[in-house]
Amino acid sequence: MTVLVFLDPALENGRIADATKPQLMATDLGATRGDGIFESLLAVDGVPRKVQAHLDRLASSARIMDLDIPPSDAWERAIATAVAEHAPAEELVLKLLVTRGVEGAERPTAWVQASLPGSLGRDQRQEGLDVLLLDRGYDSNIAERAPWLLLGAKTLSYAVNMAALRYAKANGADDVIFTSTDGLVLEGPTSTVLMATVRDGVRTLTTPLLENGILPGTSQGALFNAAADAGWQLGYGPLEPHHLLAADAVWLVSSIRLLAPVKSIDGRAIPVSHEMTEELTALLAKGSRE
Amino acid sequence: MTVLVFLDPALENGRIADATKPQLMATDLGATRGDGIFESLLAVDGVPRKVQAHLDRLASSARIMDLDIPPSDAWERAIATAVAEHAPAEELVLKLLVTRGVEGAERPTAWVQASLPGSLGRDQRQEGLDVLLLDRGYDSNIAERAPWLLLGAKTLSYAVNMAALRYAKANGADDVIFTSTDGLVLEGPTSTVLMATVRDGVRTLTTPLLENGILPGTSQGALFNAAADAGWQLGYGPLEPHHLLAADAVWLVSSIRLLAPVKSIDGRAIPVSHEMTEELTALLAKGSRE
Repeated sequence: MTVLVFLDPALENGRIADATKPQLMATDLGATRGDGIFESLLAVDGVPRKVQAHLDRLASSARIMDLDIPPSDAWERAIATAVAEHAPAEELVLKLLVTRGVEGAERPTAWVQASLPGSLGRDQRQEGLDVLLLDRGYDSNIAERAPWLLLGAKTLSYAVNMAALRYAKANGADDVIFTSTDGLVLEGPTSTVLMATVRDGVRTLTTPLLENGILPGTSQGALFNAAADAGWQLGYGPLEPHHLLAADAVWLVSSIRLLAPVKSIDGRAIPVSHEMTEELTALLAKGSRE
Repeated sequence: MTVLVFLDPALENGRIADATKPQLMATDLGATRGDGIFESLLAVDGVPRKVQAHLDRLASSARIMDLDIPPSDAWERAIATAVAEHAPAEELVLKLLVTRGVEGAERPTAWVQASLPGSLGRDQRQEGLDVLLLDRGYDSNIAERAPWLLLGAKTLSYAVNMAALRYAKANGADDVIFTSTDGLVLEGPTSTVLMATVRDGVRTLTTPLLENGILPGTSQGALFNAAADAGWQLGYGPLEPHHLLAADAVWLVSSIRLLAPVKSIDGRAIPVSHEMTEELTALLAKGSRE
């Protein structure tokens, strides 16, 4: 079952649309140019997680894309409509999408989609990920030099991210960590990279520097807040692949799959810590409820 | 008036659809991930130009994207249906689009769109273009090193191309020529770069090397064939910006706008040759009919 709610200035709570029928114009610039932005978030027992963080990032993507999108309260009401309209579920995937609209119309097309999560995310959380390092083709300073490359915006132009995942699967792996041409660890195609190190009893969680042209991770942000309260030290890159290989644990974290342990990088096994995964998963849930 | 013809295995000549109504599913991966490919071509007096070159490039994009698309003859019949369904027009824009299909369906969504061209292309052909050089963020060797970056495929993930054009317009220019991080001239966001030099009576047309990760231009190909027959020498890069600034004329060429003269690069005026533009426009038309 998939629920669609289109944001509509004429309808305060959004317009519920039949997801089994076509709802997009073939001339929508989202479909013909990937010209739009999106967010994916999880609702647990009917309660959407990290709504403000996702709406903040959506607004930030819109600024980078020079896209005029509906205000936060319209999104919140459409999300509520979508959750209410969907059959009750322990976990629900909510997608927020906005395109530049139908060619010539100069009005964005915006909608919320609610659907059940697939089983892959759960499997990968439990079994862990074999990951390949793939070159993203950009150096780590490009974002500030070249704003037209839209680094830091979560756009609908995800063909490269999808191609990287297909490449990983065709080569016996499950996921990807992108690196910059100057050798820094960036992010996954649909996730943020995290690593833990334990030295002399001090536990540190580290993630790559945002300045290197990666997407700010809403899950990483929520987890860092909760982990700091629980006594973890926090660190921010620059990270290189050798740091990941020497870590006590590495994860890819995202809003739907949550914390998925990395068990190998380019075929080299790395340590997996079930204890830390369990603790940090609980902290992520805690941080995501706040 | 816009005509839509969806490719459908059950209907030999395609399925005509009402372009004033939604025709795409909201869960189509073209709309949610920019996960698809496209071509734009011109029909003149009802005759589509360079059909085989566009179908060849569509097939090449599909291979790079690992996308299973309908065979050429199905496209040709759908194109014929779209042209026949549209009101007669001197010029008609034909778009061929294929997405990876509706999420979970594993069947591509493929359609042809026929519509009238806007007036911008004609204006720019006549008045010429002020162009900015913008860094594409990639070095010129990345394409072979990193096939997952999909260089050389014409994907629906065009957000960066659109952002580059917006950046140009916001900065008083009309269009963009992308450069590589190692300083080579690449291509426009929706066009191929061409330059002409006349030395000791020898006229040479030069375009950047394909190996540098750019899209093979169908118009450039058609023009080169016709120009060679007409006595032009042909050259292939590597080109650097100083080559463009020292040329006797520079154009951006594409299937709809055709040959648009560049009149300035980063604010520096460059020569515009009406004679060469006229001659090469006629050669492009000749090459495109073959």
